[in-house]
Amino acid sequence: MISTINLKSKMNEIRGKHCSPIDIVRVNDQIVRLSYVDGEFHWHKHTIHDELFYIIKGKLVIQLKNQQDITLSEGQMTVIPKGIEHCPKSLEPSYVLLFEPFGLLSHGD
Amino acid sequence: MISTINLKSKMNEIRGKHCSPIDIVRVNDQIVRLSYVDGEFHWHKHTIHDELFYIIKGKLVIQLKNQQDITLSEGQMTVIPKGIEHCPKSLEPSYVLLFEPFGLLSHGD
Repeated sequence: MISTINLKSKMNEIRGKHCSPIDIVRVNDQIVRLSYVDGEFHWHKHTIHDELFYIIKGKLVIQLKNQQDITLSEGQMTVIPKGIEHCPKSLEPSYVLLFEPFGLLSHGD
Repeated sequence: MISTINLKSKMNEIRGKHCSPIDIVRVNDQIVRLSYVDGEFHWHKHTIHDELFYIIKGKLVIQLKNQQDITLSEGQMTVIPKGIEHCPKSLEPSYVLLFEPFGLLSHGD
């Protein structure tokens, strides 16, 4: 059954649940996740996959070790390539879409 | 080089260019595309991949043959599974993010 996915109602589901992403939908071998970020995550990297961040609401800094940090506002996205250490930190409570391969841990190594 | 991708400036690039998506960024084996839709596309299906539609701005109907049409407003998404015939049609000029495998034609069969 093909259906409409309403991200606003999904945002209500995860409000206040820092860095506990929920699965939204699978597309091909990827999974779309939605995460609420209010504060800092932890430094990590994904060894075998890239991770896309897309800001639905809020403002997020992705701290990086070997280049300037990336600041993302609503409507902005970036891809952190595999192997790159990063640490997301919200500048205000944020809702972030994540795209990753299906079946992999989202917390990284 | 990891950089911020600003969809608002990408939207300016494609304004008025009906169903001529541009590539935004590659993530794993997928490509994120952005399309401007002002009117109807054509009936087609993708035989070997699913296609995700996410509405950045506007309102889009995805016409389907064997179930009720899907209407998508800003902040809503759907996935059309492989093999399903569909025909997108905008109800107002719309900007749509598409996720598909990298290297495949976006126009379908």
